[in-house]
Amino acid sequence: MEPHEIALLCSIIVAALAFGVAAWFFAWVKKRPSSNSIIEKISSLIRAGANEFIKREYYVLAIFVAVASVLILLFLPKPIWQGDPLTNLYMMLTYIAGTVFSALAGYIGIQIATIANKKSAEAAAEGIKSAFMAGFRGGAVMGMAVVGSSLIGVAAIFWIFGDATLLLGFSFGASSLALFAKAGGGIFTKTADIAADLTGKVELGIPEDDPRNPAVIADNVGDNVGDVAGMGADLFDSNVASLAAAIVMASALDMQFGTKFIPIAFAFAAIGLFSSIIGVITARMGKKDNPTFALNISSYLTMAIFAALTTVCTAIFFNEDMYWRVYGASIIGLAVGAIIGLVTDYFTDDSKSPVKNVAKASRSGPAFTILSGISYSFISVLPAMIGIAVSALAAYKICEPIGAAFGMGTDFGMFGISMAAVGMLSIVGMIVANDAYGPIVDNARGLAEMGGLGDEVLKRTDELDSAGNTVKAITKGFAIGAAGLTVIALLGAFRSEVNESAMQMGYGANYLAGFDILDPVVFFGIIIGAAIPAVFSAILMLGVDKNAQRMVSEIHRQFNTIPGLKEGKANPEYDKCIAIATKGALKELIPAGLTAIVATIVVGFIGGVAAIGGFLLGNIISGLLLALFMSNAGGLWDNSKKYVEAGNEGGKGSPAHKSAVVGDTVGDPFKDTAGPSINTQITVVSLVSSLMSTLFLSFNLAGII
Amino acid sequence: MEPHEIALLCSIIVAALAFGVAAWFFAWVKKRPSSNSIIEKISSLIRAGANEFIKREYYVLAIFVAVASVLILLFLPKPIWQGDPLTNLYMMLTYIAGTVFSALAGYIGIQIATIANKKSAEAAAEGIKSAFMAGFRGGAVMGMAVVGSSLIGVAAIFWIFGDATLLLGFSFGASSLALFAKAGGGIFTKTADIAADLTGKVELGIPEDDPRNPAVIADNVGDNVGDVAGMGADLFDSNVASLAAAIVMASALDMQFGTKFIPIAFAFAAIGLFSSIIGVITARMGKKDNPTFALNISSYLTMAIFAALTTVCTAIFFNEDMYWRVYGASIIGLAVGAIIGLVTDYFTDDSKSPVKNVAKASRSGPAFTILSGISYSFISVLPAMIGIAVSALAAYKICEPIGAAFGMGTDFGMFGISMAAVGMLSIVGMIVANDAYGPIVDNARGLAEMGGLGDEVLKRTDELDSAGNTVKAITKGFAIGAAGLTVIALLGAFRSEVNESAMQMGYGANYLAGFDILDPVVFFGIIIGAAIPAVFSAILMLGVDKNAQRMVSEIHRQFNTIPGLKEGKANPEYDKCIAIATKGALKELIPAGLTAIVATIVVGFIGGVAAIGGFLLGNIISGLLLALFMSNAGGLWDNSKKYVEAGNEGGKGSPAHKSAVVGDTVGDPFKDTAGPSINTQITVVSLVSSLMSTLFLSFNLAGII
Repeated sequence: MEPHEIALLCSIIVAALAFGVAAWFFAWVKKRPSSNSIIEKISSLIRAGANEFIKREYYVLAIFVAVASVLILLFLPKPIWQGDPLTNLYMMLTYIAGTVFSALAGYIGIQIATIANKKSAEAAAEGIKSAFMAGFRGGAVMGMAVVGSSLIGVAAIFWIFGDATLLLGFSFGASSLALFAKAGGGIFTKTADIAADLTGKVELGIPEDDPRNPAVIADNVGDNVGDVAGMGADLFDSNVASLAAAIVMASALDMQFGTKFIPIAFAFAAIGLFSSIIGVITARMGKKDNPTFALNISSYLTMAIFAALTTVCTAIFFNEDMYWRVYGASIIGLAVGAIIGLVTDYFTDDSKSPVKNVAKASRSGPAFTILSGISYSFISVLPAMIGIAVSALAAYKICEPIGAAFGMGTDFGMFGISMAAVGMLSIVGMIVANDAYGPIVDNARGLAEMGGLGDEVLKRTDELDSAGNTVKAITKGFAIGAAGLTVIALLGAFRSEVNESAMQMGYGANYLAGFDILDPVVFFGIIIGAAIPAVFSAILMLGVDKNAQRMVSEIHRQFNTIPGLKEGKANPEYDKCIAIATKGALKELIPAGLTAIVATIVVGFIGGVAAIGGFLLGNIISGLLLALFMSNAGGLWDNSKKYVEAGNEGGKGSPAHKSAVVGDTVGDPFKDTAGPSINTQITVVSLVSSLMSTLFLSFNLAGII
Repeated sequence: MEPHEIALLCSIIVAALAFGVAAWFFAWVKKRPSSNSIIEKISSLIRAGANEFIKREYYVLAIFVAVASVLILLFLPKPIWQGDPLTNLYMMLTYIAGTVFSALAGYIGIQIATIANKKSAEAAAEGIKSAFMAGFRGGAVMGMAVVGSSLIGVAAIFWIFGDATLLLGFSFGASSLALFAKAGGGIFTKTADIAADLTGKVELGIPEDDPRNPAVIADNVGDNVGDVAGMGADLFDSNVASLAAAIVMASALDMQFGTKFIPIAFAFAAIGLFSSIIGVITARMGKKDNPTFALNISSYLTMAIFAALTTVCTAIFFNEDMYWRVYGASIIGLAVGAIIGLVTDYFTDDSKSPVKNVAKASRSGPAFTILSGISYSFISVLPAMIGIAVSALAAYKICEPIGAAFGMGTDFGMFGISMAAVGMLSIVGMIVANDAYGPIVDNARGLAEMGGLGDEVLKRTDELDSAGNTVKAITKGFAIGAAGLTVIALLGAFRSEVNESAMQMGYGANYLAGFDILDPVVFFGIIIGAAIPAVFSAILMLGVDKNAQRMVSEIHRQFNTIPGLKEGKANPEYDKCIAIATKGALKELIPAGLTAIVATIVVGFIGGVAAIGGFLLGNIISGLLLALFMSNAGGLWDNSKKYVEAGNEGGKGSPAHKSAVVGDTVGDPFKDTAGPSINTQITVVSLVSSLMSTLFLSFNLAGII
C-alpha cells in the first residue's frame, strides 16, 4: 500500500469508529428512563415539528440541488462540450454526495437531540450528573456523526477518484446544505423566539415556556433546527472545506515534488477525530459538580491528545524537517484557536467588565445598552483578527522554507496555512458535541418547566444551560478562527485552480502569480466583495423580522378565535406556527443566498479571475469582521441580560432589565441568524469561484475591453 | 512662465477671490439687523463656549503638533542623520502650515456660524427667504474659507518648494487637525446632546432648548464645534489629501514623460473652486419658497459650471487625447459623486420605504427599530461601494492607455483615480457651504425658541432646519465617495514614495510592483488593518458615553445645589458643562487616535512596506464599510423619528415614538462622532504610512527573519 492509501484507510477506520461511538451513545441515551407523560407529549410535538422542518427544508433543497446538479453537469469544471464529460459527471456526483452526507449528519443530530432533551430533563430529577451525561452524550452523537461523515466522505471520494478538484465539488455540496440549514434554521429559530416573546412575555405576561403560547413548540423546535442541525451543517462545511483546501494544495505539491503531504494531512485529520472520540468518551462531571469545568476540561484533554499523537505520528512516520514544519503549522492553528476562544470569552463573560459595563449602561436606557454593546463588540474583533493574522503568517513562514530545496516557497506557505486550519479544526468533534449540548439542555429546561418537575430540578437544568452558553463562546472562537484560515486557504486553492485551468487553456504555467491590490480590477472586486456580507446578513435579519410579524398575526388570530385558550382550557394550534416559521424561513433565505452567488458570478464575468480574487478577499475581510462583531455582540447582550436578571443593576423588572432585554432581542438574530451564516456565505462564494474559474477565465468583459 | 506656474497663479488668484467672497458674505451677515436681547445674550454664551473649546483644542493640538514636529524633524522623510536635514526642516514647516491653515479655516467658520445663527433667527421673523440667506451665506463663508485656504496652501507650498512629497507633510498637518477637530468635536457635541436630552427631556420633561437646562448652551456649542468646525476640518483634509495625491503622482509622471499633469490638476481644482464661488453667490430661494430646492439647485448649478468650464479649459489649453482622458476621469468622479448621493438619499429620505419601514417596526419596540435600522443601513453600503468601485475602475481604465506611448500604464491609471477624486471634490466649496448651513439654522431654531419669537417663526426655522438635514445626505455621499477615491490614490502615492525611497537606498527601480493579496505579510497587514476602524470608532463611542455620564452628574449636582434652578428663578452654570464637554472630548479622543497611529507603526516595523500596503487596504475597506453604515444608520434613525413625530405610526408620545427616540439616540454618535471620524482616521493612517515609508523599508522584522 502507498503511504497515502494507509492514511486514507486509517481515516476511514477512525471515521467508522466514530460512527460506532455515535451508535453506542445513541442507544445509551435512548435507554435512559422517561416516564413523565406531559414531557413525553411535548417532546414528541417538538420532534414532529423539527422533522417537519427538516422534511420541507430537504424538499426545497432537493430542488435546489437538482438545478445546481444540472448546471454543474453542463458547465463545471468546464463547459461539457469543451472538456471531458466524465469529469463533469463526477463533479455532479460528488456535489450530490456532499449534500447527502451533510443532510444525513443533520438528520441524525435532530433525532438524537429531540430524544436527549427529554431524557436530560427527567434525569435532572435524579441529579445534575446524570442530566449532564444525557445532554452531553446526546450532543456527542451529533459531533461524531458530523466529523465521521465529513472525514469518511473526503477520504472515500479522494480514494475512488484520485482527483482533489472533485473534493471542491463535495465541499460545495456541503456548503449548499449549510446555507439552507444554517441561514434557514437561523431564521426559523429567531422567528419563533421573537414571536413567542413578543406575544407571550410582553403582551400577555406569561412565562417563557408557557404551553398556552401557540409559538412555544415552534420556539423549542427552533433550538433544534437552528442550533443543532444548522450549527452541525456549518461545522461539517468548515471541516470539509479546510480538508479539501489542504488536499487540493497537497495533491499539487505531492505530484510535483514527491512529498507526502496528502498522507500527513489525512493522518492529522484522523488523529483529530480520534482525539475527539477519546474526549467525548471520557467526558463526565467529576467531584467538582461543575458542568462548565467538565466541558472545558474535555476540550483541553482533546487538544492535548491531539498534540501528543501528532508528535508521535510525525516522529514515527514523517520524521523529516519538512513534515515537522507541517506539524508546527497545525499546532500553531490549534493553539491560536484556543487563544482566540479565551480572549473572545473575555467580552462575553459576566464576571468581566464588558458585560458588567453594558449592564450598567442599561440603567440609562436601551440606547446605551445598544451603544455600549456595539462598541465593546467592535473592540472584540481585534484579538480574533490578530490571532488569525498571526497564525496565518506564522504557519506560512514555518512552511515556506520547505520550498527552498525546490526553488519556490509560496505554495508550501499556503499549504502551511491550510494545515493550521486543519489543526484548529482537529477538535471539531468535541466542539460540535459541546455546541449541540447547549440546545439540548436548553430544551430540557423548557421541558422540565412545562412538565412541572419542580424548582430543584429547574435549578439544575439552569446550571447545565448556563454552562452551555459559556463554552459556546470558546468553541465559537475556534469555529470563526478556523473559517478565517480556511478561506485564506481557499483563496490559495482558487489560484491553484485558475493556474491549472490556464495551463490547460494554453496560457502557460503560473499564469496568475497573485492578486495585486493596486490592480484596479482586483480593487474593484475587493470593494464589491466587502459589501456582500453586510447585504447578506441584512437580508436575513429583515427576513426574521418579516417572518416574526407573520407569526405574531397568527398567534393573535388563535387567541382571538380559539375559545378558552387564554385560560389554558383549550390547546393552541402549535403546527400552524411551525408551518409559518418553516415556510417563511425557506422563503426568506433564498434572496440572501442568491445575492451572494449572483454577485460572484456578475463580478466574475465582468472582471475575470483577477476581480474574483479581489472579491474573495473583500468578502473574507468584511465577512470575518461582521461575523465576529455580530456573534460577540449577541453573546455580550445575552449575558448582560442574564447578569441583570441575577439581581444586579436593579435585577428583574428594573429599568436596566428592560433595556437589557432590548439588547438581547437585537443580539438574537445577530448571534443566531446573521453572524454564523456569514461563515457559510464566505465558503459558498469561495467554492463557486474556484469551481467557475475556467468559465471566468474564458468569458469576461475585462479581457475584452 | 511655465504652464504649471500659470496654473498655480490661477489657483492662487481664484483662492484669493474665494477669500474676497468670504469677507463680503461675512460683512453682509454681520450687517443684518438683530435686536432681541435674550437671543443676543444666549448667542454670546454660545460664541464664548465655542471659542473656549477652540482655544483648549488648539492648545492641546499645539502640544501634539510640537511633539510631532520634533519627530518629523528627526525622522521624516528620513532619519536626519541619513538624509538632507533641510528636507526634514521643510517637511516640518509644511506640516505646521497644514495645521495652521486648517485651524484658521475652522476659526473663521466658528466666528461666522455663531453670528449667522442669531441673524438667521431674527431674520426668520421677517420671512423665510431672508432667514435662508443669512444661514446660507454664513455657511458659504466657511465653504470659501476651507477651499480657499486649502488651494492656496497646496499651490503656495508647491510653488515655493517644488517638491510634491512636501505636500504629504502639509496634508498630514491637515489630517492631524481634522482628527482633533472632527473626533474631538464629535465627542463634544454628542456628550452635550445626550446629557441634555437624558436630564432635560427624559428626567425633567422640559423641552429640548429650555434655558433652565445647564447643558443647553453646551448642546448648541456642540453644533458649532462638531458640525461646523469639525466638518470643515474634515473636508479641508479630504480636499488637501486628494490634491496632494494627484500632485505627487502628476509630478513623477511630468518629470519622467514631460506631460502637463500638474497644470491640469491645478487648473481643475481652481475651476472647481471658481464654480463653487458662482454657486454660492447665485444661491437664493426663488419663487418656490423651498429651501431644499434652493440648496440642491445651487449644487447642480455648480456641477454644471464645473463640467462646462473644464471642457472649455481642456479644449483651449490641453487639447490632446491624454488630457481629454484626464478630463473624462474627473467628470466620472463628479457624476458618480452625484449618483452616490442620490442613492444614499433613498435610505434616509422619509418619503421612501426604509425610513417608513423602520418607523413601522418601531411599533413592536426599540429592538425592532435597531434591527431594521441596522439591516437597511447594511444594505445602503452597497450602492455607494459599487459607485466607488466603478468610478475607480473606470477612471483607471480611461487613463491607463495614456501610458501606451510610454510603455507603461499603471501609474497613469492611478493618476486617473486621483483625478476622479479631484473631480468629485470639485464642488467641495458648495458642499461645505451646505453642510455648515445645517448647524447654523439648527442653532437659529433653538435661539428662536429661547428668544420667544413665536410659532410662526419656529415653523419657518423648522423648515430651514429640515432642508439642512436633507441636503446633508447628498453632500455626505460626495464626501465619503471622494474619501474612498482619495485613499485609493494615497495607496498609489504610498507605492510611489516607497519606490522613490527604495531607489535612493539602492534597491533599484520599481522595487515594489504592487501588493499581492496572497503574500502572507500583505495578508497579515490587511486583517489587522481591517480591525482598526472598528476599534477606533468603538473607543470614540465609549468616550461619548463616559463623558455624557460625567456631564449628567454635573447637571444633577446643579439641580440639587442651586436653589430656584428648576423653577427658572436662578441661572444654571452653563460654563461648567462646557468645560466638562471640552476636557472630556480632548481626553477621550487621544486613545482612539493613538490606537490607529500606533497600530500603523507596529505593523510597519513588523512587516515592512508590504504589510503596510495590506494594512492600508484593510483599513480602507473596513473603514468605508463602517463609515457608510454608521452615517446612513444615523440619518435613517433621525428621519424615522421625525417621520413618527410628524404624526405617523401613532405620532409623538406613542410607543413607536419612544422606540424611534432610542434609534435616534443610538444613531447620534454613529453619524456625528464615529462615522465621519473614520474618514480622518483613514487619511491619517495613509499619510503616516507614506511619510514613514523609508523607515519601514530600513527597519522591519520581516526583512530580518
